[in-house]
Amino acid sequence: MELSELNPPPRLLLGPGPSNVHPRVYRAMLAPVIGYLDPAFLQLLSDTQVPLRAVFRTGNELTLPISGTGSLGMEAAIYNVVEEGDTVIVCINGFFGSRMADMARRCGARVVTVEADWGRAIEVEQVEAALRQHPGAKAVCIVHAETSTGVLQPLIDIARLCRERGALVIVDAVTSLSGAPLEVDAWGLDVVYSATQKCLSAPPGMAPITFGPRAVEAMQRRREPCRSWYVDLTMLREYYGGPRRYHHTPPMSMLYALREALRLVLEEGLEERIARHRRHASALWAGLEAMGLRLHVEDESLRAPPLTTVRVPEGVDEARLRQDLLERHGIEIGAGFGPLAGKVWRVGLMGYSSQPQNVLALLHALEVELWRQGCEVPRGAGVEAAARVLASGDA
Amino acid sequence: MELSELNPPPRLLLGPGPSNVHPRVYRAMLAPVIGYLDPAFLQLLSDTQVPLRAVFRTGNELTLPISGTGSLGMEAAIYNVVEEGDTVIVCINGFFGSRMADMARRCGARVVTVEADWGRAIEVEQVEAALRQHPGAKAVCIVHAETSTGVLQPLIDIARLCRERGALVIVDAVTSLSGAPLEVDAWGLDVVYSATQKCLSAPPGMAPITFGPRAVEAMQRRREPCRSWYVDLTMLREYYGGPRRYHHTPPMSMLYALREALRLVLEEGLEERIARHRRHASALWAGLEAMGLRLHVEDESLRAPPLTTVRVPEGVDEARLRQDLLERHGIEIGAGFGPLAGKVWRVGLMGYSSQPQNVLALLHALEVELWRQGCEVPRGAGVEAAARVLASGDA
Repeated sequence: MELSELNPPPRLLLGPGPSNVHPRVYRAMLAPVIGYLDPAFLQLLSDTQVPLRAVFRTGNELTLPISGTGSLGMEAAIYNVVEEGDTVIVCINGFFGSRMADMARRCGARVVTVEADWGRAIEVEQVEAALRQHPGAKAVCIVHAETSTGVLQPLIDIARLCRERGALVIVDAVTSLSGAPLEVDAWGLDVVYSATQKCLSAPPGMAPITFGPRAVEAMQRRREPCRSWYVDLTMLREYYGGPRRYHHTPPMSMLYALREALRLVLEEGLEERIARHRRHASALWAGLEAMGLRLHVEDESLRAPPLTTVRVPEGVDEARLRQDLLERHGIEIGAGFGPLAGKVWRVGLMGYSSQPQNVLALLHALEVELWRQGCEVPRGAGVEAAARVLASGDA
Repeated sequence: MELSELNPPPRLLLGPGPSNVHPRVYRAMLAPVIGYLDPAFLQLLSDTQVPLRAVFRTGNELTLPISGTGSLGMEAAIYNVVEEGDTVIVCINGFFGSRMADMARRCGARVVTVEADWGRAIEVEQVEAALRQHPGAKAVCIVHAETSTGVLQPLIDIARLCRERGALVIVDAVTSLSGAPLEVDAWGLDVVYSATQKCLSAPPGMAPITFGPRAVEAMQRRREPCRSWYVDLTMLREYYGGPRRYHHTPPMSMLYALREALRLVLEEGLEERIARHRRHASALWAGLEAMGLRLHVEDESLRAPPLTTVRVPEGVDEARLRQDLLERHGIEIGAGFGPLAGKVWRVGLMGYSSQPQNVLALLHALEVELWRQGCEVPRGAGVEAAARVLASGDA
């Protein structure tokens, strides 16, 4: 048996993630793997927690990268807080909300859902009603940037409400961390997790997470151990800090990648990075609308800059268009799924992928492929409108 | 805030893992990250399953890498098979057996333990007695190469017994895969998991696992969903095969690393690779004994070639010696833990670390450091004895 040489094709990654990895991050992965109790490695671990706190905008001691991809971050967030018999309110306005509900059920919780259409935000009144109906609810789970819909969920009022009612708020920031404003401490978020392969532009492989004091207290009051051994924070925290007790071998090369990705965020500045995501998304939106396409999230203030959903025009074969973008232009964009399957495309402008030339490249390729399918969008209008936004103001 | 440039010191990794990463594996990690539904990536996934089956010596369709490190492989093995109310027999003769018991309990199982001293194997009669006492036991969990003790557990008779009694056998092959004989199909093992950072010499980050037909049947008969969402095989198998339904984003760079590591195994030949581990371990054992040191596992046929435990001589400060090996020689070896804390060192010769020059380097450095602590081992005897073994026979 023989295996050919590894040779994946380079792509421009403008889908729902992963985003393109920064060259310096690739280089960091060549640093030598060393032992999990090597003093040099333990130092690197601690080193990495510092900028992680800065990016989450938190002082939480318990801020660390979980050794798996974003969905394991979700599992770590929910499994550590939720236990059998708890009532948990889960906000569902997209695919990842449903996933949170699934996980909470596997912890033995009674799940109460608060729902909104895919493409709309959850209203604070809905959460208020659910908390009133279930006064003992342990937590409210909510997605900050829904990768399946492109909605950026306002969190401040919901988090304030949860505090008042004594419920923890667990936030999915997989697609928003370092790509949209997120203030863990100022907004009073209790558990927030993310992933490395979105706006941080490292390869997938770790899930940054942070636990605030109320979440730590809830963990200390647990009646039974966490249902997952691998993400049980009562053990993990003894490795990431304190006695440095062995728990599992963390993925060193992924930690190196994350550390370098965080260095790049610090060098750029978190605020400037978030503004960059916003700027390039605005250019994309202007371009798509100038082509006559319709954005799925109508209220601009609810659009997540890292992930845009755009409606597939009547008569266009959406799968063929994605395939042609990939094969003829080397550009990946994502399909819709669930109720949005066949109805939208998902365009990511995250991290290293969020660059002016990528916005223009996508709009141009999209125009070419729409014409090939007989959809006669105005020639050059998308690129022109985007370029105008990019050239204006602080672009 | 500024973060210094990443600069972990190069080490010779002769501890319990990770082992040194092969240069070609580092290079593979530079291949571009692409989308999780990109046809080229799906092809790479399938490509990687083929040599994985070859290394496990199995035809099991359900053979794939879990997206986390070895302990998540353990979680995937146990959580997919075990559910609330099951009786599970767990063999404990070291640290990782206890971990399996912990995980089975978190699944809601009633755990029956079968124990042996740390450094001895589990006897087939012990398992037989436990199965007789608990005739409805769902599974027997056992560690093939106990990284905490250096024992290589004979599995053939225990597996045959389990088949006769209708119990599944779940095997931890984290430290044995491609470093010691392991025959998933011929021995009738139902679930076997491993890790990338031991004898495969890739960085930690994925956990290869295989499920045989009896295990698949047991999963299909489950009364409740798997307690972990992230490693639920009923969903994972729809991404790794069949409909290619999105589950989570796998760590692409780690998959590339694993694929390259498997290519290296195929090029070397699995049998030759296992013989190499055996040869260099024999040289190490001869060297240590010629220095007057005592191997912790007395019965040579029960020693795991990838991981050797050697007793700390009277009067030697074991922690200082490890620290001096690391700081003065750049060599990592491991400490004992549990009942072996302070009593043994753990020396790994795994994958790319299993090389003749590394055996000699370690024996020499050990001699130097033992003398520095006033332990007058015979000068040059260790290196000489090892060199003789290396030069003899098929070395």
